[in-house]
Amino acid sequence: MTTDWLDKVRWDANGLVPVIAQEAGSNDVLMFAWMNREALRLTVEHRRAVYFSRSRNKLWFKGEESGHVQHVHEIRLDCDEDVVLLKVEQVSGIACHTGRHACFFQKFEGTAEAGEWVTVEPVLKDPDAIYK
Amino acid sequence: MTTDWLDKVRWDANGLVPVIAQEAGSNDVLMFAWMNREALRLTVEHRRAVYFSRSRNKLWFKGEESGHVQHVHEIRLDCDEDVVLLKVEQVSGIACHTGRHACFFQKFEGTAEAGEWVTVEPVLKDPDAIYK
Repeated sequence: MTTDWLDKVRWDANGLVPVIAQEAGSNDVLMFAWMNREALRLTVEHRRAVYFSRSRNKLWFKGEESGHVQHVHEIRLDCDEDVVLLKVEQVSGIACHTGRHACFFQKFEGTAEAGEWVTVEPVLKDPDAIYK
Repeated sequence: MTTDWLDKVRWDANGLVPVIAQEAGSNDVLMFAWMNREALRLTVEHRRAVYFSRSRNKLWFKGEESGHVQHVHEIRLDCDEDVVLLKVEQVSGIACHTGRHACFFQKFEGTAEAGEWVTVEPVLKDPDAIYK
């Protein structure tokens, strides 16, 4: 049993690595999160995204409450070995806790002197109905 | 002159925010980097990606040495206001310093017990020819 592949990842000072979740097929960037060593190991083992919640300071099995599980099709590591990219199948098509497809729903409009972030993506499902 | 939009970003303890660069059109995730407040402001102003290099501790005008500039088509902010997504046109089609299209060229293969990262993307241009 060798976990050399886990040693190859350059974990940061907190033992974490940033993770980008991208939807297989559409290639949409769904969300961004963090993993620790155990989260990445579990992700590979179960082929479902497991993150590490920095706010709750514990493993976060994506979809455990919402049912919005991410089935992992592919895992990539970047040139510096310090960022992970997941290609996932997003159950229900909703990755964001706001009930939207993806987390990046605020678009910059304007100029550096007078800019604003505008919400440009619809809520697909009421969060109250997701998190009962 | 209002820069409220810059205040809306939740900069981390080091004054940085993680940034994902995605290719407009293909939707490929090209790279991951960081920005400070000035980098994001300059990115909006010039419509070219400007990052903050943590290793060199200074602004990094993407493409300043390589010529592989990223023209910014769109800027998105996530639900927690602490991650930025850029949609860019990648000059030359090469985003990675290794001379590859994107930085995520190492693919996980195997199992949790016996896994490895395998390079699956070609070098499009010799880095020695990029950085003279």
